[in-house]
Amino acid sequence: MATERVVVVGGDAAGMSAASQARRLKGPQELEIVAFERGHYSSYSACGIPYWVGGQVPARDDLIARTPEEHRARGIDLRTRTEVLELDLDGRRVRARDLDGGSEYWTGYDKLVLATGARPVRPRLPGIGAHGVHGIQSLDDGQRLMTTLERTPGRRAVVVGAGYIGVEMAEALVGRGYEVTVLHRGPQPMATLDPDMGGLVHSAMNGMGIRTVSRAEVTEILTDEAGRARAVVTSKGEEYPADVVVLGIGVEPRTGLARAAGLPLGTSGGVLTDLSMRVRGHEDIWSGGDCVEVLDLVAGRTRHIPLGTHANKHGQVIGSGVGGGYATFPGVVGTAVSKVCDLEIARTGLRERDALEAGLRFVTATITSTNTAGYYPGAAEMTVKMLAERRTGRLLGVQIVGGAGAAKRVDVAAVALTAGMTVDQIVSLDLGYAPPFSPVWDPVLVAARKAVSAVRSAGV
Amino acid sequence: MATERVVVVGGDAAGMSAASQARRLKGPQELEIVAFERGHYSSYSACGIPYWVGGQVPARDDLIARTPEEHRARGIDLRTRTEVLELDLDGRRVRARDLDGGSEYWTGYDKLVLATGARPVRPRLPGIGAHGVHGIQSLDDGQRLMTTLERTPGRRAVVVGAGYIGVEMAEALVGRGYEVTVLHRGPQPMATLDPDMGGLVHSAMNGMGIRTVSRAEVTEILTDEAGRARAVVTSKGEEYPADVVVLGIGVEPRTGLARAAGLPLGTSGGVLTDLSMRVRGHEDIWSGGDCVEVLDLVAGRTRHIPLGTHANKHGQVIGSGVGGGYATFPGVVGTAVSKVCDLEIARTGLRERDALEAGLRFVTATITSTNTAGYYPGAAEMTVKMLAERRTGRLLGVQIVGGAGAAKRVDVAAVALTAGMTVDQIVSLDLGYAPPFSPVWDPVLVAARKAVSAVRSAGV
Repeated sequence: MATERVVVVGGDAAGMSAASQARRLKGPQELEIVAFERGHYSSYSACGIPYWVGGQVPARDDLIARTPEEHRARGIDLRTRTEVLELDLDGRRVRARDLDGGSEYWTGYDKLVLATGARPVRPRLPGIGAHGVHGIQSLDDGQRLMTTLERTPGRRAVVVGAGYIGVEMAEALVGRGYEVTVLHRGPQPMATLDPDMGGLVHSAMNGMGIRTVSRAEVTEILTDEAGRARAVVTSKGEEYPADVVVLGIGVEPRTGLARAAGLPLGTSGGVLTDLSMRVRGHEDIWSGGDCVEVLDLVAGRTRHIPLGTHANKHGQVIGSGVGGGYATFPGVVGTAVSKVCDLEIARTGLRERDALEAGLRFVTATITSTNTAGYYPGAAEMTVKMLAERRTGRLLGVQIVGGAGAAKRVDVAAVALTAGMTVDQIVSLDLGYAPPFSPVWDPVLVAARKAVSAVRSAGV
Repeated sequence: MATERVVVVGGDAAGMSAASQARRLKGPQELEIVAFERGHYSSYSACGIPYWVGGQVPARDDLIARTPEEHRARGIDLRTRTEVLELDLDGRRVRARDLDGGSEYWTGYDKLVLATGARPVRPRLPGIGAHGVHGIQSLDDGQRLMTTLERTPGRRAVVVGAGYIGVEMAEALVGRGYEVTVLHRGPQPMATLDPDMGGLVHSAMNGMGIRTVSRAEVTEILTDEAGRARAVVTSKGEEYPADVVVLGIGVEPRTGLARAAGLPLGTSGGVLTDLSMRVRGHEDIWSGGDCVEVLDLVAGRTRHIPLGTHANKHGQVIGSGVGGGYATFPGVVGTAVSKVCDLEIARTGLRERDALEAGLRFVTATITSTNTAGYYPGAAEMTVKMLAERRTGRLLGVQIVGGAGAAKRVDVAAVALTAGMTVDQIVSLDLGYAPPFSPVWDPVLVAARKAVSAVRSAGV
């Protein structure tokens, strides 16, 4: 049997999970695995960067699950600092460039895995390229920010955007002693929640000394003579001094290669795949991680949801396929969790705007309870918002903001969404109860009870 | 329209939830509600007693959700310290006794709610009735124990039984400065888990200074001249000195009234009801809480599972029925959570012995991971054991022991069990991920991956 050759483009979660899983299924005699990574690092936790910046995680290398050397020792020819510049699908080959040495070469494949990830959105604004303006997506990005923070004197940081990365980075910078201002476009931070729930996050951010400015549109970044960022300007003409600027306005799929090669892309710009993570219409090309769109099982459409947990699952599925096994990734329900200070933040399923966009009629129910029995020491508030479809009562989404245990509470709703449960069915769920862990009626069940009433009284 | 009269027997979770829900649906002109309670208290959290004893909850009354006076102010004629001695189903009346005044009387009903709860198992042993030997089920029981602890000098406690109550009481007594010995019959404490998982609890108990004695059969309690317990003797002839003895060997449904009246009882001695919590074959009698058996949806049979969370739901369902509404209690999957020191303990579904008893063939998969990303500060071990049906891969049960967040992790499995998911489906679940809350592969998913392999290689 001839040895097959797989080329993996991208050395983080999806790419290297795929390579590792394929290697588990097939040895070097059967399958040669070559992986290309532009950066210095492999298989790292980008989600952990804010905790490294904030000092909770001592060292950069703590975020690396498996180094290039470890991958190589496992029979994967991982070439770091090597960028793939072009795909030649007809010729089944890719053109790669050694970023340090400068040499370029074509190399062939039988099977191709595209795991090129995402890049931080950088609006085309004056000064956006200045020193001291940082997007945070790769570990190299994180290292660059850390270098700036260590070398640059100054105590004022501006974070642009108040999504997960923006909020986590704001907290990290507060932890490093910066005065932090967060500029964001919406009415409330954390637009991944509905504004009523985002308001709770707003209060928590202010409570830990983070200044937030809503409905702020950044128009320019002012620089000093050395080309270093010194202030951020908004459309209202306000000027926010900054020794460092962090961009947290989201990421977009890095799909230049795929686009140039004519691979199918979705409306968010991500690669479109089938359920086994094969690129649609291409038998021998797989794609996964932050460069693809995933099926949103609740909305019934694909979305770009860049999350490490999906990327790892994609890699597992792709590696099975490449290695001759079988696995699928059925889709997501939109679960995401985060925290700011002690406030935990979670969502799954659809927000109000998502439900409207999906053509769904719904009711909402919001309740506030506690994370433990009310009488248990340290009991903290927990607010749960639930969306349910009118008439059917089918669960559409849940948002939770509250004290310890609030974030992972959302998993109950994630499973219920996957199973297509109604809020009536949720009321009867047999969830764990003991005073240190929950009131006798779990807050998710209390929200479901209120949602049942809302569905009943709403009619169609 | 004539006023209907409902008599509720039992003033804790199930009974008073039923009364309150019925009152919400029907006013005093339509429905007269009389409730009888043997004890002094109503609507309290018996599950909170260990935390009161241990000092985390400052006062007894913190455990009371609604006092008798508050119920009365809401139009419920709650008669405390009044025991119902007899049911006359043909005459539609009950015989009640005022325990303080001593008077007895018959009173009629149109609808009857039996919520008589459970009582601690007290094996018939010499000395079992001695002063200083305490079962813990009602708040009056808790008050009696606290009186003993406050009045009796001494520093040695023996807890008989190592289930939830035994383990929680052992920790509470350690918190009060006692030297605590736990005597239990099984190979490991916490027999609500399989022994391999119970072993982890064993270590944690020893780690906090609790002495545990396995395979210990208590044969006698020795008393002093004043009739006070002074030691516990086992079948091996060992003698364990004790200033106080706590019985944690389980509870049994308190169904003397129901049995005498000929109501249907299950093999565990609990009242049998239909899905609307009406006693089987009796149109106008409902029963719920710790005196009934509930349908175990995984094992396909009824069981006695005394838990406050079920009792509250039963009450809600019964109150809806009594008040002319509609609700059902579909059953349980056997979820229970607890903790000892910082170790969280959880189970749902079937243990190995339950699965065998139910006639199921299964595989098991056990993994150890961490509660947060491994690099996140304070990451603690979490062990997950999963049972899946052979051939179908259907989830049968999950047990979890570990650090912060381990207990409520089991809720994911509880929902998956309710939905009848396979371990393959669980692997793809979209659970919340962020470094402070989970590794990128949630431990439940890691266990499911291993279970998938086990199912595949086991065949039928």
